[in-house]
Amino acid sequence: MTPKGFSFAAIRARFKPWDKEDFGLIASDRPCAAAAVFTTNRAKAAPVLLDMKHIKSKTHRAIIVNSGCANAATGATGYQNALKTARLAAKALGCRTEEVLVASTGVIGVHLNPKVKIEDGVPLLAKKLGKSPAGFVRAIMTTDTKPKSASKSVMLGGKKVTIWGSAKGAGMIHPDMATMLSFVVTDANVPKPVLQSALKQAADKTFNRLTIDGDTSTNDTLAVLANGAAENAPLKTGTPDFAKFTQALSAVCDSLSGQIVADGEGVSRIARISVEKAASQKEALAVARAIAGSLLVKTALHGGDPNWGRIICAAGYSGEKVNPDKMELYFGRHCAFRNGQPASTPEKLLSAEMNKKKVAMRLVLNRGAAGDSYLFCDISHEYVTINSHYRT
Amino acid sequence: MTPKGFSFAAIRARFKPWDKEDFGLIASDRPCAAAAVFTTNRAKAAPVLLDMKHIKSKTHRAIIVNSGCANAATGATGYQNALKTARLAAKALGCRTEEVLVASTGVIGVHLNPKVKIEDGVPLLAKKLGKSPAGFVRAIMTTDTKPKSASKSVMLGGKKVTIWGSAKGAGMIHPDMATMLSFVVTDANVPKPVLQSALKQAADKTFNRLTIDGDTSTNDTLAVLANGAAENAPLKTGTPDFAKFTQALSAVCDSLSGQIVADGEGVSRIARISVEKAASQKEALAVARAIAGSLLVKTALHGGDPNWGRIICAAGYSGEKVNPDKMELYFGRHCAFRNGQPASTPEKLLSAEMNKKKVAMRLVLNRGAAGDSYLFCDISHEYVTINSHYRT
Repeated sequence: MTPKGFSFAAIRARFKPWDKEDFGLIASDRPCAAAAVFTTNRAKAAPVLLDMKHIKSKTHRAIIVNSGCANAATGATGYQNALKTARLAAKALGCRTEEVLVASTGVIGVHLNPKVKIEDGVPLLAKKLGKSPAGFVRAIMTTDTKPKSASKSVMLGGKKVTIWGSAKGAGMIHPDMATMLSFVVTDANVPKPVLQSALKQAADKTFNRLTIDGDTSTNDTLAVLANGAAENAPLKTGTPDFAKFTQALSAVCDSLSGQIVADGEGVSRIARISVEKAASQKEALAVARAIAGSLLVKTALHGGDPNWGRIICAAGYSGEKVNPDKMELYFGRHCAFRNGQPASTPEKLLSAEMNKKKVAMRLVLNRGAAGDSYLFCDISHEYVTINSHYRT
Repeated sequence: MTPKGFSFAAIRARFKPWDKEDFGLIASDRPCAAAAVFTTNRAKAAPVLLDMKHIKSKTHRAIIVNSGCANAATGATGYQNALKTARLAAKALGCRTEEVLVASTGVIGVHLNPKVKIEDGVPLLAKKLGKSPAGFVRAIMTTDTKPKSASKSVMLGGKKVTIWGSAKGAGMIHPDMATMLSFVVTDANVPKPVLQSALKQAADKTFNRLTIDGDTSTNDTLAVLANGAAENAPLKTGTPDFAKFTQALSAVCDSLSGQIVADGEGVSRIARISVEKAASQKEALAVARAIAGSLLVKTALHGGDPNWGRIICAAGYSGEKVNPDKMELYFGRHCAFRNGQPASTPEKLLSAEMNKKKVAMRLVLNRGAAGDSYLFCDISHEYVTINSHYRT
């Protein structure tokens, strides 16, 4: 179910020698409010640098995306290629260049081919616009094995509003602001600053709480377009409807970020680490992040080995003033560590929890009332295989 | 070549069901000055907590080490077991308990067996003391595939002084203060504060500049004993002899840390990333550390793929205000990236550099005059295999 007024297209432009769509377009039939969060990496890709200017426009009409080439570490030439993409899309759609957002994903350090891929591809994309988003969702995939999309509808002031989003992930994924590529569209009527506020709340609890391999990409972009076609009264912050909308937007982001982790490169198992009773939110987050980022925790997860000492160890080097003697660690309902010592839980109970497809870990710090959590995955042989010869 | 006045022993105490020595002892025939650096992890193992007290003693006589059990996350019981080990060693050697340093390495969250392993083992160890360090070096190994030792002799004030050291590494290795277990002994006459100063200088440029998997262990200990048997005049800081001694100590530490990285779990290739012309030492170190810690850089290294975009990406998320457009990146003599764009160097030249057993990477930031470097290794299928079933 996609929101009213949006159309989608995808073609095979062959940015890589592969047999799948790799150039996609989302367009709205009317001007939209847009909000976005971008990578905090200082080596920002050309399309990110362009979008950071374009997002200042009051209205937007389209998002154009290619996979197979990140257009990152490509300097002034790369920027011109991103700009050319936006310009050609604007021309084809009859809008201003600033109303187009551009995104790229793929290999770093390779130029886009402006003549064959862009000049020929963009008008072709515009001609193919239609109601089905299926091609677009496939076109943004790289090493993803599954297309990722999610949608949710809610009633706002008597009007049915739909939020639909898609995402790609798989590798070079670690949160810091936004992470990976994700595009969300809605027919809700949401003024631009209100949309930015809702997006920030949704992203902080979803995309910014997941990690696959700890590498924050050069291209991370999460953008949302709201075209108002649902004809609800303009949304205001602090209202029950704002809470309802943000909740629905968070649900879409949560589904997409869950799909990203589950489809991480070579992933066989995912886990959520919840840190409870921390002295502060900052402490809870830092501890959760250290555990989710530990290569030793990730490989133990891969093997289904409840090697809980590695979790205590990672909490210990998180940089926070935690006290191991006060900690309690649980796998599911079963306690592994308490009072500074191994708990007496039989190994087979811990092992059964660690061998689930989705593992629940809970570390209670007993230092205060704050909490936070992180979603992560194992690191497998397959991850090493994919990433040791990614370009070849 | 080992220094005068030190003897060594090793036995099979079977802390794990394996067929190798796993309990080792180094003893001096006279009191030594000692200096040590320990893990910064807040979840410190029992022997580390004990040593942090014992190191305050003016003199020391011995270091006793077991492998196969880390005695970490073992609470008050673990502390008592570490203390009992020191007490029994002191009794056997005729010295004070505080003069004995204790170290453990192996699985976290398992108790030492005080009755069979410690009470029976320690007196047996003391009886076996002799001149050869070979058994001791093997006894501290866990997943290491090669024993690691190094030595160096220098003349100080007309007296020949020898420095000998051994180390174990392999996994859960990331610097933060000390990293892994390493024991260095010398017959130089070095007062305690002078020894601590020399050790800090040596460790900062060697052990604190290497990473295997980014996990800072609960047990990291680097200890040095100086017994003065070479009969040189007491060393003073700021003298040419101090510089000579520190240089020799650094050479021993450098050799040991190189051996650790080369023998990291599943390692097939190592690399040094040198960061040059940084705005500050802090910046150079942070950028080098981000690159050495990147799982994507490590897997590219594994595949011999000069995927330089991942290096620029890691520099970008280092947290420092680097500017990708000013960077130059070299593999050996060959430039991969310059002026914000790919350099024109043929791929096969970059590939040849990346396929060496030891790869030299150089990132020039062009922001100032500071520099630093980091030693690291690839992450392979073998690493995943070892760590997904470490305990089983």
